[in-house]
Amino acid sequence: MLRSYVQGRWQVPEDEGAPLYHAATGAEVARVSATGIPAAAALEYGRRVGGPALRELTFHQRGALLKALGSYLREHREGLYERSTWTGATRGDAKFDVDGGIGVLLGYASKAKRELPNDTVYTEGAVEPLGKGGSFLGQHVATPLHGVAVQINAFNFPVWGPLEKLAPAFLAGMPSVIKPAAPTAYLTARLVELIIESGLLPDGTVQLICGGAGELLEQVGSQDVVSFTGSAATAQKVRTHPTLVRNAVRFNAEADSLNVSILGPESGPGTAEFDLYVRQLVTEMTVKAGQKCTAIRRALVPEALIEPVTEAAVERLRDVTVGHPADPSVGMGPLVSTEQRAEVRRSLKALRDAGRVVHGDPESVEVTGADAERGAFVSPVLLRADHPERAEPHEVEAFGPVATLLPYSSAAHAVDLAARGGGSLAGSVVTSDTDFAREVVVGAAPWHGRLLVLDEANAAESTGHGSPLPALVHGGPGRAGGGEELGGVRGVLHYMQRTAVQAGPDVLTAVTGRWMPGASRAVSRTHPFRKSLAQLRVGDAVVAGPRSVTAEDVAHFAEFTGDTFYAHTDEEAAAANPLFGGIVAHGYLVVSFAAGLFVAPEPGPVLANYGLENLRFLTPVKPGDELTVSLTCKQITPRTDADYGEVRWDTDVTNQDGDSVAKYDVLTMVAKENPA
Amino acid sequence: MLRSYVQGRWQVPEDEGAPLYHAATGAEVARVSATGIPAAAALEYGRRVGGPALRELTFHQRGALLKALGSYLREHREGLYERSTWTGATRGDAKFDVDGGIGVLLGYASKAKRELPNDTVYTEGAVEPLGKGGSFLGQHVATPLHGVAVQINAFNFPVWGPLEKLAPAFLAGMPSVIKPAAPTAYLTARLVELIIESGLLPDGTVQLICGGAGELLEQVGSQDVVSFTGSAATAQKVRTHPTLVRNAVRFNAEADSLNVSILGPESGPGTAEFDLYVRQLVTEMTVKAGQKCTAIRRALVPEALIEPVTEAAVERLRDVTVGHPADPSVGMGPLVSTEQRAEVRRSLKALRDAGRVVHGDPESVEVTGADAERGAFVSPVLLRADHPERAEPHEVEAFGPVATLLPYSSAAHAVDLAARGGGSLAGSVVTSDTDFAREVVVGAAPWHGRLLVLDEANAAESTGHGSPLPALVHGGPGRAGGGEELGGVRGVLHYMQRTAVQAGPDVLTAVTGRWMPGASRAVSRTHPFRKSLAQLRVGDAVVAGPRSVTAEDVAHFAEFTGDTFYAHTDEEAAAANPLFGGIVAHGYLVVSFAAGLFVAPEPGPVLANYGLENLRFLTPVKPGDELTVSLTCKQITPRTDADYGEVRWDTDVTNQDGDSVAKYDVLTMVAKENPA
Repeated sequence: MLRSYVQGRWQVPEDEGAPLYHAATGAEVARVSATGIPAAAALEYGRRVGGPALRELTFHQRGALLKALGSYLREHREGLYERSTWTGATRGDAKFDVDGGIGVLLGYASKAKRELPNDTVYTEGAVEPLGKGGSFLGQHVATPLHGVAVQINAFNFPVWGPLEKLAPAFLAGMPSVIKPAAPTAYLTARLVELIIESGLLPDGTVQLICGGAGELLEQVGSQDVVSFTGSAATAQKVRTHPTLVRNAVRFNAEADSLNVSILGPESGPGTAEFDLYVRQLVTEMTVKAGQKCTAIRRALVPEALIEPVTEAAVERLRDVTVGHPADPSVGMGPLVSTEQRAEVRRSLKALRDAGRVVHGDPESVEVTGADAERGAFVSPVLLRADHPERAEPHEVEAFGPVATLLPYSSAAHAVDLAARGGGSLAGSVVTSDTDFAREVVVGAAPWHGRLLVLDEANAAESTGHGSPLPALVHGGPGRAGGGEELGGVRGVLHYMQRTAVQAGPDVLTAVTGRWMPGASRAVSRTHPFRKSLAQLRVGDAVVAGPRSVTAEDVAHFAEFTGDTFYAHTDEEAAAANPLFGGIVAHGYLVVSFAAGLFVAPEPGPVLANYGLENLRFLTPVKPGDELTVSLTCKQITPRTDADYGEVRWDTDVTNQDGDSVAKYDVLTMVAKENPA
Repeated sequence: MLRSYVQGRWQVPEDEGAPLYHAATGAEVARVSATGIPAAAALEYGRRVGGPALRELTFHQRGALLKALGSYLREHREGLYERSTWTGATRGDAKFDVDGGIGVLLGYASKAKRELPNDTVYTEGAVEPLGKGGSFLGQHVATPLHGVAVQINAFNFPVWGPLEKLAPAFLAGMPSVIKPAAPTAYLTARLVELIIESGLLPDGTVQLICGGAGELLEQVGSQDVVSFTGSAATAQKVRTHPTLVRNAVRFNAEADSLNVSILGPESGPGTAEFDLYVRQLVTEMTVKAGQKCTAIRRALVPEALIEPVTEAAVERLRDVTVGHPADPSVGMGPLVSTEQRAEVRRSLKALRDAGRVVHGDPESVEVTGADAERGAFVSPVLLRADHPERAEPHEVEAFGPVATLLPYSSAAHAVDLAARGGGSLAGSVVTSDTDFAREVVVGAAPWHGRLLVLDEANAAESTGHGSPLPALVHGGPGRAGGGEELGGVRGVLHYMQRTAVQAGPDVLTAVTGRWMPGASRAVSRTHPFRKSLAQLRVGDAVVAGPRSVTAEDVAHFAEFTGDTFYAHTDEEAAAANPLFGGIVAHGYLVVSFAAGLFVAPEPGPVLANYGLENLRFLTPVKPGDELTVSLTCKQITPRTDADYGEVRWDTDVTNQDGDSVAKYDVLTMVAKENPA
């Protein structure tokens, strides 16, 4: 009997539950029920205990926990692989699910460190000046919603699915309640056992409810998020659930879609792209026995190439051994359940109205190491529809090892056929022709969440048609559910509220932890470069200068650096330049002199200037001008795993009239403590 | 009889329609009906004619049309002001609506120029390396949806409402169908007449359907967007419309919300903030007779200050003259209709269960220049609820000149009370205390789309509690509809599909129009700085060097610039630096030498280097190193309104081992034609 994990403890349901079966043998492996599992209490516990604990942590601290969890799961993945066999997964399928899930944790841990502040408020986008005087600014910030991220997962990725939703929610600062799909809930339950055993995540941040989702959905409020993966029909039910509608609950859906893969017209037999296309098609059909929402369902092939592609694909499919997933000689395991097999056979009936079977028998299959009827085995089935405008291939999805070959006549035709899917999670174009790739990608993009262009040059590094990646968005319009997940920081923001804050610069500095233009500055006797991270405060500043820029300086700099651009060297030509009207100093000279003004030469906590950002030259500097520089500590990002951190300095170089001649951010690495 | 504008012509409904009345006099001013207006044809025409025409234009071209339209409407705004009187709007109210709408057009025109490319594909965020070898990259792009943006507008902003939705949709490349709310449809119809008369926008990009929205909603598909503003109840109906649900149509809702304004505890009588708070409260109650979804409904005041705030607000409210909106002595006009007045009175009954009236009579009002009963006049009503935990003030909205004063005891209490609104469009904090402001803003942000902090220093520039701005998001969670509009480029992306494109660098360059790291470069005999915008191509490059950096160069640069940081000048101290381990050249020296290498000194099309971006020093440069620089044209942005444009150059400085020592983008202005 699968237990649920609610309110910090494992809870056993109150009835016998429903049996779950081994996909390959048909033997009962577990029972599942949510009877007596307090769904409302899980939400309340997440909101009261998990949320506050998470919100105490900075993004970097949350990321470090995800990284530790990823490492822990990697150490214990063998057990997850083994239990994956029950779902029908071969070792390769299990790796796709388990390693993919761990990859999301590690990917998000890395994003946290590089793209999020070591703070609890996320500052998004540029500051917006809302008045000419600079006393009133706008800044978007994102803060975690105070509810729970409710996951309604699909059966096909029992490990990747929950982790793919957990990582961005956790990073955002929202606790999760995981509701696995019943058929493979035993594997998600094992995953959650490992998470709890690790002791790494704060109490209340991960809970598990095995069984139905009904009571959970009845209790969600406007600060919760419901994130669904599964069929389009169920997505519609959840989307229109009265509680979700009444509370305008944030809802995201990923539904399986009729994804295309398009072969370029130039890639005939003998080309690398032809082979890549056929190999990828067969891989997408057979990995997880085709039970991937991103799998290729429609194989679009130039009319002239449909014969050779059919032959090559059939030849490759003949080599696929179907059987018990634990048998190493097996290339494809069973479907997850005999119910799914019946469903696939029903869909195949509809698809056969528009296409003929060129490989496989929808009703029977030869099986290695298992009983073909007791297990949920099915043959890979490749169809070919010679009239690509027929509706079925674009509308009927057989969620198994099934794809249909369709001929197209031109790039525009391929785009039109792709769009007939009504919205897809993923599509691919296999071509060596850059123009064809551009036309198809730009044309088909409005119907796609992700598009892959595969060719000989990137094949070795390509991650493949069917693999969502944490750094890229996963989702698609229309048929695919109209949702979006992942995509790096974008995915984190799905669990946060974006708020436009309008205020004066001092308040915005206090809210964001970043010094805003016009905010108060603290100029003290101690140069801020002499302060360690422990001593430094946002707003600490140094003002230095003035220093004159002479005609000799400009001439010398031109000669020394070789930058003899006429505006610095030729009075007559410079006078004709519409922007300058005479000799001007090099921008590089200005920033070099500014550095000479604000530097603190002796060894101290500042280790290096590792970069500059957003440098703009605003007013030409002419010989005789006098430069003053103001350097103000703008943002401090101590590293959680090193004895230093990054400090960003607002830099404003002004002339004798007080006009800014250059503005930029100086990026430095600063030690946490002063050198002894 | 109000006409609709569909399929490029004005169409008259087939029946008598329903009468619309002057808000102040009760006289019939127009009739409205959608009978016989072909809604499905409007969608089809938008998709077939308007969409393709818009997608031909670049973002800059679309922005220029919005700017021209804004100027045209500004010239013709007097007629819009006049007709606004029918809605009950005073001259001030009319300006809020009309000038606000024109401001959105101009704001978006300006954003287009500054933040969008002069191209048809929007490249979002950084390129994501997906493999170590650089042959496989990810880049998010956004392309316009191929459907129609269907607006379901509210009655209270008949000009601002449609323009606020039109501007970002138009900029994205999506045509709009405007469905105004019946009570004020005559004003939106006049606006659309002006738009059509201007002849500025391509055919099929703006259509108007006066009357019911039912048939429109039945015809929307997965590439359309439905954008709704109005009551929470109607939002729920539209959200669950079977066609929207079946097609996963992108849906956005703005519903009115119970917005708070919070006075800081330090701001007693005699402070500027006290006066600002009271003045803003009364303004928000009376502008548009309180018919603003962002208006203050809940006035949160420190317990100790509730008496003086009540007194001051009542005193100010006594000065508000209610009457005919065309009378210049009138401070507040009528509600839009007697139905709305009945609705406000119903809500007031519920509110009075929790609070007592301290100003105004819910049932009667003295009126200047009109008949109090024939017009939809109502008195401003201020209530005071001494038990702030009572549900009504947080749940019942009287959509008129009504607010409730509520006492709070601490910042945390104020945040808790704010959250009881269940999600708001806007909130404000009036305080001179930065810490209080931070606590309330960070605490209340998850329930708010926008938060304003008002104080003496920013009061003169502040745009006020109730005004959404094009650069800032407008929307809010939960009760406020869970939607988001505007927010600069964010609002444009609501009408586009985000797609993650995975490909090799050459394909990504072709798709995005931006040179990607690793893509092909064209090094020719002509230096790319000698090419005008007309001649220059993305990928044009120059490779120059090597140049040695000597110990003398470093010592001289230190002396010349004054940048005598020990890592450049003190061998022993530099050796102790954990990153350098010896003397290193200044980063500024490296970029200056690089400029000396890639410069083309004679006058030519390159007018100026106006900035640098994303400069990173990647490998220390030591005396004796030899530098080579590769400069590659990365992005070309010709201006639509000038004879030059911006060119961004990818810059990579490498050492004798081929390691990158610095990478950055050089920003230049380049003439469209070579000088004669």
